[in-house]
Amino acid sequence: MKSSTDPVQNLAKLIACPSVTPVEGGALTALQAMLSPLGFSVERPVFSEDGTSDVENLYARRSGNGPHLMFAGHTDVVPVGDEAAWTYPPFSAAIHNGEMYGRGAVDMKGGIACFAAAVARYLDKNGELKGSISFLITGDEEGPSINGTGKLLEWAKAKGESWDAAIVGEPTNPDKLGDMIKIGRRGSLSGTIVVNGVQGHAAYPHLADNPVRGLVTLVDSLLYPVFDEGTKDFQASNLEITTIDVGNTAVNVLPAKATAIFNIRYNDTWTDETLMAEIHNRLDKASGRSKLRPGKKTPVNYELIWRHRPSHVFFTHDEKLIGTLTSSVEAVTGNRPQLSTSGGTSDARFIKDYCPVVEFGLVGKTMHMVDERVALADLETLTQIYERFIADFFA
Amino acid sequence: MKSSTDPVQNLAKLIACPSVTPVEGGALTALQAMLSPLGFSVERPVFSEDGTSDVENLYARRSGNGPHLMFAGHTDVVPVGDEAAWTYPPFSAAIHNGEMYGRGAVDMKGGIACFAAAVARYLDKNGELKGSISFLITGDEEGPSINGTGKLLEWAKAKGESWDAAIVGEPTNPDKLGDMIKIGRRGSLSGTIVVNGVQGHAAYPHLADNPVRGLVTLVDSLLYPVFDEGTKDFQASNLEITTIDVGNTAVNVLPAKATAIFNIRYNDTWTDETLMAEIHNRLDKASGRSKLRPGKKTPVNYELIWRHRPSHVFFTHDEKLIGTLTSSVEAVTGNRPQLSTSGGTSDARFIKDYCPVVEFGLVGKTMHMVDERVALADLETLTQIYERFIADFFA
Ligand SMILES: [Zn+2]
Ligand SMILES: [Zn+2]
Repeated sequence: MKSSTDPVQNLAKLIACPSVTPVEGGALTALQAMLSPLGFSVERPVFSEDGTSDVENLYARRSGNGPHLMFAGHTDVVPVGDEAAWTYPPFSAAIHNGEMYGRGAVDMKGGIACFAAAVARYLDKNGELKGSISFLITGDEEGPSINGTGKLLEWAKAKGESWDAAIVGEPTNPDKLGDMIKIGRRGSLSGTIVVNGVQGHAAYPHLADNPVRGLVTLVDSLLYPVFDEGTKDFQASNLEITTIDVGNTAVNVLPAKATAIFNIRYNDTWTDETLMAEIHNRLDKASGRSKLRPGKKTPVNYELIWRHRPSHVFFTHDEKLIGTLTSSVEAVTGNRPQLSTSGGTSDARFIKDYCPVVEFGLVGKTMHMVDERVALADLETLTQIYERFIADFFA
Repeated sequence: MKSSTDPVQNLAKLIACPSVTPVEGGALTALQAMLSPLGFSVERPVFSEDGTSDVENLYARRSGNGPHLMFAGHTDVVPVGDEAAWTYPPFSAAIHNGEMYGRGAVDMKGGIACFAAAVARYLDKNGELKGSISFLITGDEEGPSINGTGKLLEWAKAKGESWDAAIVGEPTNPDKLGDMIKIGRRGSLSGTIVVNGVQGHAAYPHLADNPVRGLVTLVDSLLYPVFDEGTKDFQASNLEITTIDVGNTAVNVLPAKATAIFNIRYNDTWTDETLMAEIHNRLDKASGRSKLRPGKKTPVNYELIWRHRPSHVFFTHDEKLIGTLTSSVEAVTGNRPQLSTSGGTSDARFIKDYCPVVEFGLVGKTMHMVDERVALADLETLTQIYERFIADFFA
C-alpha cells in the first residue's frame, strides 16, 4: 500500500508532530507532504490578532470539473496533561493491541489521515475526480478559535473560492464507528454579571446593599424557567452558571461587589439577538422588587458584559448531503447512523455560512484524555466510508 | 482639677498608647496608674490560646461594704486605616474646636476615661463607697475576642469574684449623648456551606452536577422566608450571605465545588441550638428536588461548617439596673434615653451569664473611622452621668 493511501501511516506522521495549540509543530507540513503528490496546491496562510498568538493554517485545493467539496478540520491538539500517566509517549504513535496511541489520534488528526487516504485511494482507482476537493485545516480549533477557520474561510472567499458542501472530520461517534453523524450543533453564548452594592457591616444591613442578594436574584431568573424544551432536532437550550465570585474574607462585612459568569448552549429556537434580548429582559425584570432583598426599594444595580463573540447555532437542512453521508456509513458499517445535534460547538458553526456542512469522524471516547488512542480497524473503516462518500458525492 | 477626676486628661493618656489589637501599647499600664491612687488593687492576667496572640487584660477592684458593680470595656482599638488621611495623628490626642482626635476616642477609651473620672469625683466628694467597684478591661475586644472578656470573667469567678450588676462603656448613642442605652444585643452566628458537585463540560451538563445550582438552591432557602419579624424588644433576625466563591476561570467547564459563607444576627426568638437546627433543617429540605436543578435526582451534596463560637444574644430584664441608668442619663442630659437592642455584638454577651448588664457610653458616629473624635463636652457629660449612676446604684 502506498503511503498516502494508508491512514495508519498518515496518522503516525501527524501524531509525531507536537502541535499543541497554537504551535504548528510540523503537522501542517506533514499534511502538505501527503497532499501535494495527490495534485493539491497548498497554501499556508498565517493569521494574527492583537492579544492572540499567530496561527498557521492550511488550504489545499485539487481542482476538477464539477462540484466543490470541502473537508475541514484542525491539526492542533489539546495539551497532553500528565505526560507520566500515558502508557506510551503522547507523540510516539505507538501501536499496541491494534490501537495507535497519541494526542490527536481521534481529535482529529485521525480524521484528516483517513480523508487524505480516501482521496488517494479514489484517485488510484478512478484516475480523476468529477469536481474539486479542498482541505481547510486550521491550527486554532482547540484554542481561542480566533485565527483559525473563521478567518481561513474569509481569506479563501476573498480569493474567489466557494463550496457546494463540507464535511468536518471531528470525532462524532460516542461508542462505535457509524453511530452518529452531527447535522447541527447548539450555539454557545457567555456573559458576566456584575452586581454593585453598598459595602457595610453585617449588623446594619439596612445601611448597606448586599450585592449577593441582588446577584442571587438575577441568577435565579436565568436558571428558572428553562429557556425552551428543545425541538425535534435539538436538545433543550441550557444555561449554566459557571462561577460566582465575591472574595469577601470578613464575615462581619457585607461586600461591595459580586460577580457571576454564565454560559448558555442554545438551539435554533433562538438567534444570538433574540437570546441576548431574552437574557437582558429576564435580568431587568428580576432586578426590581425581590423577596430576596426585603426592604430595598432601588433595583439591583447590575452590569452585563458579553464575553467573546457567540458561537452560532447551526443546523443543516441539506437532505442530499445528509443522505449521501448516511448511506456511505450504512454501506460500509451496516449501521444506520443517528442524526444528532448534541454536544459542544465545532468549527462547522463558521462553515455553515458558506455551504451546507455535516460532521463525521472517529469515536470520541478518549479525546482530550490521557492515552488518547484509535483502533487501527476504525481508521480503515473510516477511510472506506470517506472514499464511498467521495464517490457518491461526485457521482 | 486633679488628673484622675478629669476625663479629658485621662483620655489623652489612653489615646497616646498605640494599643491596636492585640498590642497592649501601654494603655493598661496608663489605666492602672489612674486606678491605683483611687484605692483599686490591680491585676494584669495574660491569656493565650493556640493559634491566637497572647493578650493582656486588666482587673481592678476597689472593695467596700455593699453590692458589687462592674464597669467593663476594652483598651484595644481597631487599626488607624489610612494614617495620612487623619487631620491629626491618630495617637496624638490633639484637641481642635472642642474635640479630641484619636483612635479609640469614642470606642472606647473615652468611656473608660469618664468612668475612672466619675469614680474619682465620687470618692472626692463622699470619701467612701457603700460597696465594691471593679474595672474589667480587656485588650481583645476588637480582635478575635478569644483571650479577652470571656476568659477574664472565668478567671475572676475562679478567684471567688461575683457581681451584682455591670455597665459596659461602649459608644451606644447614635447621634447625641443621652440618646440610647443598650439593654440587649442580637446574637451572631456564621457558617460555611460547601457544595460538592461533579465537574464537567458546559455542553454536557447532564454528565456533570454543577454545584452552583445546588448552592443557589441552598442560599435561597436561607434568604427566604425571613427567620422572624422581630419582637417588641428586638429587631428581626437577619441573615446575610457575606460571600460566594467558586473560582472557576474556564467558561466551558462546570466546576466541582462552590462555597458560601453566611452570618445571621438573631434575636431572643432563638437560642444558638434552635437557630442551628432551623438552618440545618432549611438546608436539608432545600437540598432535595429543586426547580433550579432540573433532572437531578440526587440531593445537593453539601457540608455545613459552623465558624467560631456563636456570639450569644443577650437581653437584660433587670428593671432596677435599667431604671437607675435611665434616670441618671435623664437627670444630667434632660433626655430620656431610648432602650435599644440594635446593632452589633459586644462583650456584654459574655457578662450576661454572670450578672445583669447594660451598656452606655459616648456617641459612636466616628468609631472605626479616620478622624475618630469626641467632643470634650461629651466627656464631661458622660462623667457626670456615670457619677450620678454610681451614686444612685450604691444609694
Ligand atoms: Zn476537535
Ligand atoms: Zn468597642
